[in-house]
Amino acid sequence: MSNVKSSEKRVLTLETPSRLGKEVLLAGWIKTRRDHGKLIFLDLRDRSGIVQLVINPKISQVAYKKAEELKPEYVIKVQGSVKQRPTATINKELDTGSVEIEVENIEIISKAEALPFDIGADVLNLELPTLLDNRSLSLRHPKVSAIFKIQQTLAQSFRKTLKEEGFTEIFVPTLVPTATEGGAEVFPVEYYDHKAYLAQSPQMYKQIMTSIFERVFTIAHAYRAEPSVTTRHLSEYVSLDAEFGFINSWEEIMEWAEKVVLSMIEDVREKNQKELKLFGVTLPEFKKSIPRMKMRDALGIIFKRTKRDHRNEPDLDPADEKEICKWANEECGSPFVFITHYPTKKRPFYTMPDPKDPGYTLSFDLLGVSEEWVTGGQRINDYKMLLGNIKKWGNKPENFQIYLQSFKYGMPPEGGFAMGLERITKDILGLSNIREASLFPRDMERIDERFSAID
Amino acid sequence: MSNVKSSEKRVLTLETPSRLGKEVLLAGWIKTRRDHGKLIFLDLRDRSGIVQLVINPKISQVAYKKAEELKPEYVIKVQGSVKQRPTATINKELDTGSVEIEVENIEIISKAEALPFDIGADVLNLELPTLLDNRSLSLRHPKVSAIFKIQQTLAQSFRKTLKEEGFTEIFVPTLVPTATEGGAEVFPVEYYDHKAYLAQSPQMYKQIMTSIFERVFTIAHAYRAEPSVTTRHLSEYVSLDAEFGFINSWEEIMEWAEKVVLSMIEDVREKNQKELKLFGVTLPEFKKSIPRMKMRDALGIIFKRTKRDHRNEPDLDPADEKEICKWANEECGSPFVFITHYPTKKRPFYTMPDPKDPGYTLSFDLLGVSEEWVTGGQRINDYKMLLGNIKKWGNKPENFQIYLQSFKYGMPPEGGFAMGLERITKDILGLSNIREASLFPRDMERIDERFSAID
Repeated sequence: MSNVKSSEKRVLTLETPSRLGKEVLLAGWIKTRRDHGKLIFLDLRDRSGIVQLVINPKISQVAYKKAEELKPEYVIKVQGSVKQRPTATINKELDTGSVEIEVENIEIISKAEALPFDIGADVLNLELPTLLDNRSLSLRHPKVSAIFKIQQTLAQSFRKTLKEEGFTEIFVPTLVPTATEGGAEVFPVEYYDHKAYLAQSPQMYKQIMTSIFERVFTIAHAYRAEPSVTTRHLSEYVSLDAEFGFINSWEEIMEWAEKVVLSMIEDVREKNQKELKLFGVTLPEFKKSIPRMKMRDALGIIFKRTKRDHRNEPDLDPADEKEICKWANEECGSPFVFITHYPTKKRPFYTMPDPKDPGYTLSFDLLGVSEEWVTGGQRINDYKMLLGNIKKWGNKPENFQIYLQSFKYGMPPEGGFAMGLERITKDILGLSNIREASLFPRDMERIDERFSAID
Repeated sequence: MSNVKSSEKRVLTLETPSRLGKEVLLAGWIKTRRDHGKLIFLDLRDRSGIVQLVINPKISQVAYKKAEELKPEYVIKVQGSVKQRPTATINKELDTGSVEIEVENIEIISKAEALPFDIGADVLNLELPTLLDNRSLSLRHPKVSAIFKIQQTLAQSFRKTLKEEGFTEIFVPTLVPTATEGGAEVFPVEYYDHKAYLAQSPQMYKQIMTSIFERVFTIAHAYRAEPSVTTRHLSEYVSLDAEFGFINSWEEIMEWAEKVVLSMIEDVREKNQKELKLFGVTLPEFKKSIPRMKMRDALGIIFKRTKRDHRNEPDLDPADEKEICKWANEECGSPFVFITHYPTKKRPFYTMPDPKDPGYTLSFDLLGVSEEWVTGGQRINDYKMLLGNIKKWGNKPENFQIYLQSFKYGMPPEGGFAMGLERITKDILGLSNIREASLFPRDMERIDERFSAID
């Protein structure tokens, strides 16, 4: 049936400008189709980008006949020659915009049913629920898939920086015997005849592993049974976690967090210009080191600037976070700011209290463009103190035996940090909802399908 | 209290031979202590290895006094000078065996309680349950931690090879609306007011993502509610998954699997000589490409060699796998063998049947040193055929809507493969139980603690 010679090697659309005048074999999805008089124009999408195909019945009657059948998202193979576009029709927005493919043969690889919306448009003007109901389709849109190219860079950069610094990558379980961070926001699992839970973080295991490899990192799934729907929370998210022993001071942890985050941003700047352009965003510039400030002082500044009096609050709310980021930008020329010394009661039981002021902890949040990017701090490494805190926080030590072993048998001063991959992806791109930064977001209303649509 | 100057920069034990004659500041755990007359010898362990400390009261009375308190697994900082060892006492087995540290100051960072067993011994002669009951301690043993250094290399090599070939790394959920692969071996999760499950594999999501990025990989947790305790299964494991579209033939998938696995083994050979030595294992050598053989033919060969007649069985059992690996080694000079064309009924619903013989599939297992390393194959990319199979396998299409969308709207021929990280770690090192290759193994008897010890 087909006239396309399968023995020829497929060329990616991005490679076509370098093959000017040559015959090429391309394969991909039809992004758009436009009929102009006796010519059919197709935009072909593959993993490298998009190129324009021209089907002219004067070049190939057979190809033209076939092209008449074609609809958006059909998967095709085409053979044709790479031609320079007339100057007036050059598309500077497109990597392949100086050429087009004069098609000689077309083979249909896979047909598509009628689409629920136009995926070929430059922007998908659809509500998020519609995008998510049709996730496998909407992800095909270049402006949607670009989000996950950037996400890949962020994760790989995190690993690269830590690997270069002698950190060991570890793989730790997500099925746990008890709620990691305490609290009720945990998913129970029917585990054979027992009850288990989904880990709220890889925290305890990464701490244990500092007593083996000193410096460790992991990219782990974390689960939070958030009882509400917000634009900042997911029920399952990807956590980038680092932990290290033999710290000289707790401030060292902030230095590491700063180093890792700056490298992540620089790697996105280097590798994802094309994707960033789709969003029209400018990445933060770091000309100075990131300022550090106690939480109480931050609340004081916010009060001065906005008259919003949260000075007795134990934490910053989202509006406070935005305000203090704004302050850092305006007053310190820094798009980021470290907020330190959160109250002991607002932090998990393993957080090291400040010896000078034990109502507060040696902990920090790194606030980014407009919200929290990183959370971290020094941990309690004294066995008896940790045991005491587990009890004080209302937990049972017998549920923490494997964890406590590490401290019972000698643990150096240690600390670490964690960040949510989807959250920083969202913040870098200025997305309005964290769900856009998760391939298949989970929340209380949805696992792939909306529950309301199933029940 | 302490005389150790914290302003000096810590040196790793491995760096000491290059600092001969110099003052150094070291930190780590006491692996062993030996008292010889008026001298105390300590082996100090840090993330880079081990070095011998000598505490001589003639050098420092203060240090000697402090050293008398020291016990195994105490965390200490020491200051001392690097001395050449007398020729007779050089330890060639140790990277730092040509030197020892003449200690001037000691600071105790963290004390350890009495150990349940001697962690300083060259080999831990303990039963696996004891090792796992004391996991946070037993992991400190160099021969135990070495397993996870090799595991790190395997995972990082998998990523590196695929990244170089234009694969995109993806992060997909583990909370799923239905049993991925069918069957009963799935863990239910109480998900708000609904029921969810833990993914048996990232299979469906990686397939969906081939319609976005064509070539994708993910390192994902997978969960199997195995109703029995074997030496080869874990309830939670790490799955290395790759998937790619626009395959030219299904054999191409085996070529990719071979390329990836060979790179992993070569990377371990290059980076983990020290760890391999502890196990005395020789890595497989690949002089020829890996032979390929249909399952039915393999069972015929096994029958000929052993008189064990499994020729009508739908699968190879563990003894068959060992035997056919032996055959491949003896007859083809290959430590690995691809077994292809498993029966359609033994493979998941999405497996592409062989058009020439639809009772069998275009699927393969790559059998390694002694068991299955990789499983893979071509997938059904035709929407109607896939829909038909979902029903034929007794599943409800409405549970697979997001998945089916990809096929409804155009999917190229595609396939992929997966391997269990713990299983290949086990097989490379010849470990007798897969639990040894998981930092914190989960099975029906244990999540950290043995259930029998808690109930």
